[in-house]
Amino acid sequence: MTRVITLTTDFGEGSPYVAQMKGVILSIEPAAVIVDISHAIAAQNVRQGALVLDEVCDRFPPGTIHVAVIDPGVGTARRLVYCQAGERALLGPDNGLFSRIARRSPLATVTALENPRFWLPEVSPTFHGRDILAPVAARLIGGLDPRQLGSPVERLVELEWPQPRISGDTIAGEIIAIDSFGNAITNIGNEHLARWSDRGAIKVQCSTARAIRLVRTYGERATSDRVALIGSGGMLEVAVVGGSASQELGLKVGDRIEVRGGV
Amino acid sequence: MTRVITLTTDFGEGSPYVAQMKGVILSIEPAAVIVDISHAIAAQNVRQGALVLDEVCDRFPPGTIHVAVIDPGVGTARRLVYCQAGERALLGPDNGLFSRIARRSPLATVTALENPRFWLPEVSPTFHGRDILAPVAARLIGGLDPRQLGSPVERLVELEWPQPRISGDTIAGEIIAIDSFGNAITNIGNEHLARWSDRGAIKVQCSTARAIRLVRTYGERATSDRVALIGSGGMLEVAVVGGSASQELGLKVGDRIEVRGGV
Amino acid sequence: MTRVITLTTDFGEGSPYVAQMKGVILSIEPAAVIVDISHAIAAQNVRQGALVLDEVCDRFPPGTIHVAVIDPGVGTARRLVYCQAGERALLGPDNGLFSRIARRSPLATVTALENPRFWLPEVSPTFHGRDILAPVAARLIGGLDPRQLGSPVERLVELEWPQPRISGDTIAGEIIAIDSFGNAITNIGNEHLARWSDRGAIKVQCSTARAIRLVRTYGERATSDRVALIGSGGMLEVAVVGGSASQELGLKVGDRIEVRGGV
Repeated sequence: MTRVITLTTDFGEGSPYVAQMKGVILSIEPAAVIVDISHAIAAQNVRQGALVLDEVCDRFPPGTIHVAVIDPGVGTARRLVYCQAGERALLGPDNGLFSRIARRSPLATVTALENPRFWLPEVSPTFHGRDILAPVAARLIGGLDPRQLGSPVERLVELEWPQPRISGDTIAGEIIAIDSFGNAITNIGNEHLARWSDRGAIKVQCSTARAIRLVRTYGERATSDRVALIGSGGMLEVAVVGGSASQELGLKVGDRIEVRGGV
Repeated sequence: MTRVITLTTDFGEGSPYVAQMKGVILSIEPAAVIVDISHAIAAQNVRQGALVLDEVCDRFPPGTIHVAVIDPGVGTARRLVYCQAGERALLGPDNGLFSRIARRSPLATVTALENPRFWLPEVSPTFHGRDILAPVAARLIGGLDPRQLGSPVERLVELEWPQPRISGDTIAGEIIAIDSFGNAITNIGNEHLARWSDRGAIKVQCSTARAIRLVRTYGERATSDRVALIGSGGMLEVAVVGGSASQELGLKVGDRIEVRGGV
Repeated sequence: MTRVITLTTDFGEGSPYVAQMKGVILSIEPAAVIVDISHAIAAQNVRQGALVLDEVCDRFPPGTIHVAVIDPGVGTARRLVYCQAGERALLGPDNGLFSRIARRSPLATVTALENPRFWLPEVSPTFHGRDILAPVAARLIGGLDPRQLGSPVERLVELEWPQPRISGDTIAGEIIAIDSFGNAITNIGNEHLARWSDRGAIKVQCSTARAIRLVRTYGERATSDRVALIGSGGMLEVAVVGGSASQELGLKVGDRIEVRGGV
């Protein structure tokens, strides 16, 4: 049984709020191994948090508890939930944070956090990450049966995840994330490109930029060249070699991307 | 006995100076569990470090060693000290860093770090965090009796912590911190507001902004609304729902805040 | 035997790419102790990564595996290597990242990572840090003999490290790094200054600034004073007390610095 708890929040890197959660976890379960996934999620950007969780959580040992706190509704009627999806265990607000993971792996068990016995004795109305999620995560790592947390939940809040549209020889998708290198990651997956046998003929078009060729890796082209490639998460991305596609091409989340094959 | 050592510095997130301290600790005490509280304290801002330590340290297991390095006087005659305050153990320069914690919990034991036997063999004049505090923390976690560190200290350096002034139906306080969401945290505590039985009638005034109503949590109001509430540290704060009070209202540390009840 | 693995990358603080590497490591070796050195290396700045590694790695326990991913050539023909230099073990691309360490401590063993048996089953062309380096690091911590990784390498890629030039009573060097306080760190070491017995007479000249006196530590001068001193890494640096030399004096990496003694 793993003892890993991950944390994903919009608190900001270096936020003492994160440290408060870690203190609570270690006070209850000294053997917990706490790993930060990111605290640089944009404030209250549930969608970005959902994407990051979805991309990262499968890399962790089965049984890892993934705690996510992007929680604009803290203290209101929104639920907190525990979910199991395959070998992943997720803890956080029911606001769509887990709806990206749920798309590819049905949530087997969803439980509402209702039983205050497993929370801190005092619960503030503005920081459930520290007062409810952290102690529950620590107790789950310590062996608590998740069914004791509360009653089953039928349906989670879902976010809509726009799908690429395929028509004729064109796939129309959009940019769903910008990474720290300025690479623009799209919602077009490797599997979408599989319809064309000649990958060398694939061209990618974004906003004002001329069509960009598909390559295998950044280093195949010279510095400052624009490239498109399948990134490490299996999604098509647009990059500038040795530079920032986001800045140099003015790309941002939501921008339309078009891919054409066989041209 | 816990093996947790926390680090709070003004070195900047991602600073290799922090990693050097961790390397020293793990070289001496491989079983140490190191937790970052924050390295995003503004350079040499002892006051901010003192506030963060005060808010965070109680969340950690008793016996945790809290190492703080906001140390503009490094290498000069300023002392380094070990303090015990309740179940908290603190290590750092005697420059006021622990004077906020000391306000609510008298420092039971204060020892000057004088015995070089517990330091690195070579001590640079500019990085006592690495050369003195890190090895001492590691040895304390390993069971070293703090009395061996040096001689007792009578009195720590204190910073002045402005208290809210109450007159008639008004409390005048000030902003003491801005958090990563841009919330403005004041020196007015929940206990100060207890004098008014009707919390719904409380109004908060800051600089040019119109009076703001007290709510329980952010989500009670619509995005962009200005709210005041008791934050997770028990202090009154001013926030903008889904936004940054600091930016949108131009609030900064030191700004005056006035609270009126029963109006 | 230590279980420490350090990570140094240009992924950015809070990057979920770092978390993916940690997940892979902990999935293979649950007992690994992972320490971040820095993820704030400027994108693809191999030289900065080499300097940070060189300054930090000796502080860690012997046997620590230092994984470095500043890897603009990922997916191309560039090699990945395992190196032993004294008691340090290094893993990363062969692009000069380890050439600073190699200057002061010959690399005893260098092995190319060739044996895919120790990698993730699927290797993406853009993220060898996650798919090759992380699993190899985990297996080395678990006791894998490095000779199984691949065949010996004769010569690593080297970067040129400019040496200070000494002529008459002058040493001409340059700024090689700016730290998070804005201190400008030079390539002139304490040993270079040893040629002058009267350290009080040493003067440092940078760009337009008037000559700066050498002090022992920042706190010896008043706030806003310009000082030169031997920093915690043993190199001459230029600082502004309580401020940023980089900003206030406009200093940047590559700027020329001149030191004169006995004047």
